[in-house]
Amino acid sequence: MPVFLDASADDFEAQFTALLSAKREDSPDVDDTVAAIIKDVRERGDAALIELTAKFDRLELTPETLRFSTSEINELVAQVPTHDREALELAAERIRAYHERQKPADESWTDESGATLGWRWTPVSAAGLYVPGGLASYPSSVLMNAIPAKVAGVERLAIVVPTPDGQANPLVLLAAQIAGVDEIYRIGGAQAVAALAYGTQSIDPVDKITGPGNAFVAAAKRRVFGKVGIDMIAGPSEILVIADRDNNPEWLALDMLSQAEHDESAQAILITDDPAMAKAVEAAVERNLTSLERREIAGASWRDFGAVIIVQDLDKAAELSNRIAPEHLELCVADAEGLSEKITHAGAIFLGAWTPEAIGDYVGGPNHVLPTARSARFSSGLSVMDFVKRTTLARMTPESLRAIGPAAETLAISESLEAHGLSVRARLNHLNEG
Amino acid sequence: MPVFLDASADDFEAQFTALLSAKREDSPDVDDTVAAIIKDVRERGDAALIELTAKFDRLELTPETLRFSTSEINELVAQVPTHDREALELAAERIRAYHERQKPADESWTDESGATLGWRWTPVSAAGLYVPGGLASYPSSVLMNAIPAKVAGVERLAIVVPTPDGQANPLVLLAAQIAGVDEIYRIGGAQAVAALAYGTQSIDPVDKITGPGNAFVAAAKRRVFGKVGIDMIAGPSEILVIADRDNNPEWLALDMLSQAEHDESAQAILITDDPAMAKAVEAAVERNLTSLERREIAGASWRDFGAVIIVQDLDKAAELSNRIAPEHLELCVADAEGLSEKITHAGAIFLGAWTPEAIGDYVGGPNHVLPTARSARFSSGLSVMDFVKRTTLARMTPESLRAIGPAAETLAISESLEAHGLSVRARLNHLNEG
Repeated sequence: MPVFLDASADDFEAQFTALLSAKREDSPDVDDTVAAIIKDVRERGDAALIELTAKFDRLELTPETLRFSTSEINELVAQVPTHDREALELAAERIRAYHERQKPADESWTDESGATLGWRWTPVSAAGLYVPGGLASYPSSVLMNAIPAKVAGVERLAIVVPTPDGQANPLVLLAAQIAGVDEIYRIGGAQAVAALAYGTQSIDPVDKITGPGNAFVAAAKRRVFGKVGIDMIAGPSEILVIADRDNNPEWLALDMLSQAEHDESAQAILITDDPAMAKAVEAAVERNLTSLERREIAGASWRDFGAVIIVQDLDKAAELSNRIAPEHLELCVADAEGLSEKITHAGAIFLGAWTPEAIGDYVGGPNHVLPTARSARFSSGLSVMDFVKRTTLARMTPESLRAIGPAAETLAISESLEAHGLSVRARLNHLNEG
Repeated sequence: MPVFLDASADDFEAQFTALLSAKREDSPDVDDTVAAIIKDVRERGDAALIELTAKFDRLELTPETLRFSTSEINELVAQVPTHDREALELAAERIRAYHERQKPADESWTDESGATLGWRWTPVSAAGLYVPGGLASYPSSVLMNAIPAKVAGVERLAIVVPTPDGQANPLVLLAAQIAGVDEIYRIGGAQAVAALAYGTQSIDPVDKITGPGNAFVAAAKRRVFGKVGIDMIAGPSEILVIADRDNNPEWLALDMLSQAEHDESAQAILITDDPAMAKAVEAAVERNLTSLERREIAGASWRDFGAVIIVQDLDKAAELSNRIAPEHLELCVADAEGLSEKITHAGAIFLGAWTPEAIGDYVGGPNHVLPTARSARFSSGLSVMDFVKRTTLARMTPESLRAIGPAAETLAISESLEAHGLSVRARLNHLNEG
């Protein structure tokens, strides 16, 4: 049974803290295995990749067939029904339009000392995108990772996707094609992450790796971090719905189940100021759990991690939400914009009951790769910013050096960094002599 | 002896690749020790902190003296000479002015479907800053980490700084005071990182930890990543100077030595199209190495990792620079702005010979916490962006849901996520019935 809490109860604080700190995921310790796989790929390159793919994916490859050929991709993509293709194209167009607005601007100005300062943004040259195989192989995630990279100006974008027993998902390939992906390799696991980070005879290394994966992939990303950039380590999905009395409980129940159906470790929480709504949503969740295709997964998630919290007013709901720092937050209340102003930590906010979270997963425009496990306290969803980096710029004139150079020299001396001071002093002396 | 390379030589590519891949730092494997320390602090809190501080810093503390009191801070900062104080204040003012311009803007717009989309930036609530003790205890680094956090709007900013044998650096405390730091704790090492990430009886946990440290600190930051945000793992400092024939070799030599004096693993590289300049700079480096206070450190860095590269033209210099992806890049050439346009990967660029890198370390305005070890290929220096996060916003109207909802439903079905599709369908059915 999900947890039912009343924010006005005496033991609420203890129970809410327990809810917050509940461990939803037991990551198996695969670090030693992953370290060995990475070492193997670094040492033996293609040969290691081919051997590990035969072992884990039951697929015999050669250096020539590691990568999907254009004709293979075209053949597979041709199988996709028109309505699926059109939906993907609409999604891609909307995601691209949203992310185009994220491109940061270069700046340059001259200050009162005469120094010219600023910065310039440049794209990462090459990026790699991990796409899981099997159940969690989502074409929408390909769009959400690949489009920001291409909007940022990444020149070379490579995908790795395991194809167990040779089974490829035509929708994943189509999404890659629509997004403008340059290379697709049929490899997965820690070995694919190692190949992207270090390169092999057939695969050039990349500078940044993004995309979700299992415990092996996550451990491999953590290990190659520093050699390449990585995105966040994603945990199981979460939704928090804040709702007032004027709602359709069926809609809210389906929204909560749309997270619960992802994963047994997913979490769906409802906070409402209306006890009757709490009851009605709970009943609607139970009703749908009898018929849903993924009822076993969604049911386990709801039973183990679901929660319903009654509050006296919506200010309290905002306060609790900020402590939860949810990945997805639906504000199904009369003044959603007003309430959203009180939200300080959340990955994505969905305003009003006409905005089901599933819209954001596919066609809304914003990214669906979002911070989980309370990491919205310090991190953001995937964006164009993940594929660019900033170079700061400074130019001194003789006059500006004369104005601020002595302070630099003073600080250098106070830090016992003599050459730092001398590099400024040599120029100042030249000015004084001139 | 440093490496001398000629880009037109037959074996240049092999030698340059060797230079790029030279391992400058052997991080000792302290991961097990660090894991034990973190576990100890999580389990025993203050008691573990006090015990570890007695052991490593030879300092007996109590829960009450873990934190510097305001009167202690005032007493220590009163010792700072006026010219040091004034230099720190000038630096702080210029760093603040530069970083104020980095504050990102919220956006909101309504698209042609009628959907309102956008995003909002919010600060991290609480941040912790690691400040090393001993030799590398730099007040300038306190400014460079603390000011962006405060400009971002971080409410609670805590510093941890080890004070071996009880020795505190008054300049570090003054820099913290000028930057508006809220709490200062006299603890260091992995135990301080653990205290910031998980909290103890006397120290509230933070959401993000930044700042440089030794191998133990770096390993601890890597371990707590995910529970809290961290900045980059910094390596030894680097400078690349690109210079033409019209330069003062003494200035360039001092600029290179100002990196070399940081650390035996630091790296200084000169690229020039003028063989005579190459010789003159090398001679000036050797000359200064006879007198410099830190000549042993700088000499070891220059001998083991220094390099001078002759190129036929400056376009080749830009190309090599982009492969090096230097932390600091000085462009001491006639058209520095023109050459900088060709630079795709660098932490910070210093334009023209009147802009010694040391200006950027202290008073230029841009941050001196910059990506090392070729990570400028995928990451940026520290900035206000490290202390804010973005929440995406979306609001559908019934009309916009009617326009784009069916595509979301189609994609949900194609991904076998039934509840996702139903959450959209329930609303569309309501519209169709209405």
